Amino acid sequence: MQNYCCNLIYFDKEALRFLHSAKEMRIFYVAAIVTFASLTLPELVATMINISFPDGAVRQYEAGVSALDIAKSISEGLARKVLAANVNQQIWDATRPIHADATLSLLTWDNAEGKNTFWHSSAHLMAEAVEELFPGVKFWVGPALDKGFYYDMDLGDRKMSEEDLLLLEKKMNELAKKNNSFIRKEIAKAEAIAYFEEKGDEYKLDLLSNLTDGGITFYTQGNFTDLCRGPHIPNTAHIKAIKLTSIAGAYWKGNEKNKMLTRVYGVTFPNQKELDEYLLLLEEAKKRDHRKLGKELGIYTMDDDVGQGLPLWMPNGTIIIEELEKLAKETENAAGYKRVVTPHIAKESMYLTSGHLPYYADSMFPPMEMDGEKYYLKAMNCPHHHKIFAAEPKSYRDLPYRIAEYGTCYRYEQSGELFGLMRVRCLHMNDAHIYCNKEQFFQEFKAVNDMYLKYFKIFGVDKYVMRLSLHNPEKLGQKYVNEPELWRETEEMVRKVLIETGTPFIEVQDEAAFYGPKIDVQIWSAIGREFTLATNQVDFNSGRKFKLNYTTQSNETDTPLIIHRAPLGTHERFIGFLLEHYAGKFPVWLAPLQVKILPISDKFMDYANEVLHQLTSVGVRVEIDERNEKIGKKIREAELSRVPYMLVIGEKEMNEKQLSVRRQGKGDAGTIASSEFVENIRKEIFERKSAE
Amino acid sequence: MQNYCCNLIYFDKEALRFLHSAKEMRIFYVAAIVTFASLTLPELVATMINISFPDGAVRQYEAGVSALDIAKSISEGLARKVLAANVNQQIWDATRPIHADATLSLLTWDNAEGKNTFWHSSAHLMAEAVEELFPGVKFWVGPALDKGFYYDMDLGDRKMSEEDLLLLEKKMNELAKKNNSFIRKEIAKAEAIAYFEEKGDEYKLDLLSNLTDGGITFYTQGNFTDLCRGPHIPNTAHIKAIKLTSIAGAYWKGNEKNKMLTRVYGVTFPNQKELDEYLLLLEEAKKRDHRKLGKELGIYTMDDDVGQGLPLWMPNGTIIIEELEKLAKETENAAGYKRVVTPHIAKESMYLTSGHLPYYADSMFPPMEMDGEKYYLKAMNCPHHHKIFAAEPKSYRDLPYRIAEYGTCYRYEQSGELFGLMRVRCLHMNDAHIYCNKEQFFQEFKAVNDMYLKYFKIFGVDKYVMRLSLHNPEKLGQKYVNEPELWRETEEMVRKVLIETGTPFIEVQDEAAFYGPKIDVQIWSAIGREFTLATNQVDFNSGRKFKLNYTTQSNETDTPLIIHRAPLGTHERFIGFLLEHYAGKFPVWLAPLQVKILPISDKFMDYANEVLHQLTSVGVRVEIDERNEKIGKKIREAELSRVPYMLVIGEKEMNEKQLSVRRQGKGDAGTIASSEFVENIRKEIFERKSAE
Repeated sequence: MQNYCCNLIYFDKEALRFLHSAKEMRIFYVAAIVTFASLTLPELVATMINISFPDGAVRQYEAGVSALDIAKSISEGLARKVLAANVNQQIWDATRPIHADATLSLLTWDNAEGKNTFWHSSAHLMAEAVEELFPGVKFWVGPALDKGFYYDMDLGDRKMSEEDLLLLEKKMNELAKKNNSFIRKEIAKAEAIAYFEEKGDEYKLDLLSNLTDGGITFYTQGNFTDLCRGPHIPNTAHIKAIKLTSIAGAYWKGNEKNKMLTRVYGVTFPNQKELDEYLLLLEEAKKRDHRKLGKELGIYTMDDDVGQGLPLWMPNGTIIIEELEKLAKETENAAGYKRVVTPHIAKESMYLTSGHLPYYADSMFPPMEMDGEKYYLKAMNCPHHHKIFAAEPKSYRDLPYRIAEYGTCYRYEQSGELFGLMRVRCLHMNDAHIYCNKEQFFQEFKAVNDMYLKYFKIFGVDKYVMRLSLHNPEKLGQKYVNEPELWRETEEMVRKVLIETGTPFIEVQDEAAFYGPKIDVQIWSAIGREFTLATNQVDFNSGRKFKLNYTTQSNETDTPLIIHRAPLGTHERFIGFLLEHYAGKFPVWLAPLQVKILPISDKFMDYANEVLHQLTSVGVRVEIDERNEKIGKKIREAELSRVPYMLVIGEKEMNEKQLSVRRQGKGDAGTIASSEFVENIRKEIFERKSAE
Repeated sequence: MQNYCCNLIYFDKEALRFLHSAKEMRIFYVAAIVTFASLTLPELVATMINISFPDGAVRQYEAGVSALDIAKSISEGLARKVLAANVNQQIWDATRPIHADATLSLLTWDNAEGKNTFWHSSAHLMAEAVEELFPGVKFWVGPALDKGFYYDMDLGDRKMSEEDLLLLEKKMNELAKKNNSFIRKEIAKAEAIAYFEEKGDEYKLDLLSNLTDGGITFYTQGNFTDLCRGPHIPNTAHIKAIKLTSIAGAYWKGNEKNKMLTRVYGVTFPNQKELDEYLLLLEEAKKRDHRKLGKELGIYTMDDDVGQGLPLWMPNGTIIIEELEKLAKETENAAGYKRVVTPHIAKESMYLTSGHLPYYADSMFPPMEMDGEKYYLKAMNCPHHHKIFAAEPKSYRDLPYRIAEYGTCYRYEQSGELFGLMRVRCLHMNDAHIYCNKEQFFQEFKAVNDMYLKYFKIFGVDKYVMRLSLHNPEKLGQKYVNEPELWRETEEMVRKVLIETGTPFIEVQDEAAFYGPKIDVQIWSAIGREFTLATNQVDFNSGRKFKLNYTTQSNETDTPLIIHRAPLGTHERFIGFLLEHYAGKFPVWLAPLQVKILPISDKFMDYANEVLHQLTSVGVRVEIDERNEKIGKKIREAELSRVPYMLVIGEKEMNEKQLSVRRQGKGDAGTIASSEFVENIRKEIFERKSAE
């Protein structure tokens, strides 16, 4: 209440506006009198504060100004877009008054935090609608998600149906149009408890029992009040397009011994167009679901006797794996990498040295106890690679020493978090480690970045961004290795690489690895879904932990810097991505079957075999459909199997040594001499051409 | 003594001869009188017995005849070679009388059992020598080995030195020349105990405490008597060449809480020539030791933090691995195999289905307990492959279904049994499984056999033998699946394949796998050492256990036969073999580095780089020795590193676009145009030519 009071004292315009809209004037006056007495002198005299903007500009505003006021002072158009604000690195309501000097970014739909606030407010709006249609409903929590939101609720004996979702959407639209403000109110714990006791919501009371007095807030929009930390968007009118997507059961607090609550998922947008696009994407993503395609195309299978999250790669999936490995090996070979092969296990002592134990133990498989020792499945390849570096003495002549392995790692993921190829327990990683000195670092890091860009081009990944995580100088020696100079140098070099190569990137403070800056690579599939592909890290620390060293030119001993990199990520996630990206219609070089020969009848089998041999002799993966079926059926089934080329062979083709070519999804591609087709496809494969 | 008695009754010539040579006539007469009373009528009247020979011939001999007598009746030359005999499938002293109809094979130095008997008798001879030089020595056990023998002994406070070995050899030679017979004597347990109590040998008393009266025998040669089950060679004069190879410590009964005994190893031969050859082989094998070469050539390393028996493959070893995998993939691809990739772990339920648990548990790594389940590292790839077969419905059109994987398995070996790459805990296996019907079996098995023969040719393996293990019809339903017809058919088909392809093989009765006949592949390295490479098995049973089936042409359901095969064995053992076989001088296609360019001075670097690029463009692994060193030193070091080709570049070579070629170990190979060299080596690699 102190804030309101302050505004009152100075007859701030905003405060007055608030007073007019305030519902409980009586409470306000009491609070104003109480808090007036506690105001200090500086607070009474300060009228202007400095607001610093992201572009470095600093402007003065009256204390008590809100982010929304500031937006309005810039432009009404901007103000209409503001959903929340970043005030001194904290996400705030755009309407919350600012009383002291602060840094400020305005958050709109274009910011992740803006969307998050929007969806969290949409959860409140949905709750308001539910309360109207299901009076007496009790609420647990309703957070925003990566895309949308949900709210968990106890409907008592009632059940919610798909039809109810439509009614709820209608109600939400009605309520949104009322343009109700989200009003924040700090509240004493006793008062909050009294409120929910009267309402009879034991779930909110449970939440309250874990909160301490002083920091508790309520948010109210329209007739709905919720216990909530916030922040929220200024008002409900921002929410212009609403879709409730599904109903699910969810145990209270995730514990199956507790009551099953009803969870309603939804997603909202600031305009109908974006919702329509999103629904289209959902539909397309469903068609491209890597689990569905993975089964249809014989890519991988899962088996209960093998275990969850452990894909078995079927023959077609293995062809893709081998093409990817061939690409990686060729690329890495040309870039001066050597290859190694290391075991999938190691003793406890290795992971105590690396520091993975005990800190990372939860993400590792449990140990096998043997000969009085504990052996662990490797969750990463680095320690094994460090041992190979250390196996023979190294000099400056051996640096940069680059060793690569498609290493298979095992990581423990909760069974509830496993998802197709995207979240697995077995990971085939396109791993490598580069050991170099400081002088070589820039060039090595740039070469790695170039490799990423090369791969993006091959796979037609047009949209990507590198997320550069930096250290925080205040946490040196705690969260980060205490090497201020190395941090400064390597961060600067990494940044320089990204700028010089024109790579799109964002910087994130205070999210580096313990041992150095890192880059997370985000890519978007053809239908615009985001995937985190890989991480690329600089490491000052492991060299020392593993006592790795080399003799310098001046005959001294030094520890190498290490770059961890995995541009193609893991087979699991990357092939999952590719299945969606290509909708299973792989470019020819990746397609498990590249050509299907479709003779119109048995008469043409000799010629079909002749073409088959021409193609296999240049390494094309080809089959003949020998069945005694109508050509129409053969074509339909070949189309469905997504084989890129179909070669129809009849009387004319045989006599003229020609082929009638069909391109999957594109129909007839004309007639061509068989020798010419062989040469064309050989070239298409060799060049790893993208599917058009 | 009954035997002697019998002979006496009939005034058998052999018995009379024995009587003359018998040392304790008094004991003999007493025994003869005692046993005479117990003779039964048939024994008294039976004079002739039928002896069946391996070639099917049957001849009559007087009862009581010995194998040695029989040999003499055939030829004195043969008799001089006889070391022991196989009488009714038991190995016997050649001098032991035979009293009833029997099958007989004479065993000489050419039989494994003959050698084994020879070396066991040599251990006794060594013990006799030790007793003369170290009076009061006590003996534990002295078995034959694959090559040679040892004896464990307690020398009290005395120590045995390398010089003592020479003295012992001398003494053994003396004793051997005495031509003492090995005399077998059945003895009552009490008498045997009395003998060793008097001698004061608590080790033999310990052995006796575990023997039951009635089957105890002593063997005596010269002045040495030992508690021994036998058999032994006729006399010491067979032992003509003796080498005691080493002294080691060995805990009594292998338990480190017990006293440390002295173990003396030796090897003996029937002539000096064979000993000389053997010592030469030993020396050569030492030079070719895969552990020594593996380190020198940067093939693999071991690390305490990773664990015993878990090789890390260094860059040079990985090149060999990748060349082998490339060869296997090309070969298997051409033979219609598809490839798969499966996880390294599976749940307990999988191995309960396969039957590996609980029976094979000792050879598996201990389980990891997770989510209330036990997960095991796979010790074989079969169950995972069966799951892939089962993942999609199969029809007769899909058969034969051949799936291959260079799968990595983990097996528990006792740490004491681990040995370089030869006995490891991590195995990269050239594995595949073929699912077929009975009609396809012959052709499929023949194709597998052809693949073995193809590989032997590529790797210059001239000496090999397939050991075909068959079932025993009497143990159907117990040791073997009760499928008499399938056993008969598949054994016949396997045999037919081996005969038709002219593959050398031997048949072994009663050693098949539970589920079908198997072939163990034995190969010999260039220096004549034997290696067990791989196993090739027929399997009627797993198909049923895993409920694998396919729809037949007549629309019924049937279970496929399965062939397990791994022609290249494991990378570990095969690369270990190749290191010895080639003495590290790999043929060009396998050599980690194929060409080293040696410019005589910096002046020729441009041309050296030109040649380098010509070679890398056709995939040759090539390096330039850029150091500012004398050409002699460069050549010496390149020779030592075993790079197959060295290209010396000087003024003349540069001006004429030529290369001065050196072949490793063979010196100057003349001058050649660089383009011609590139073409020659490309062809040599492509054809995987053997090293000459």
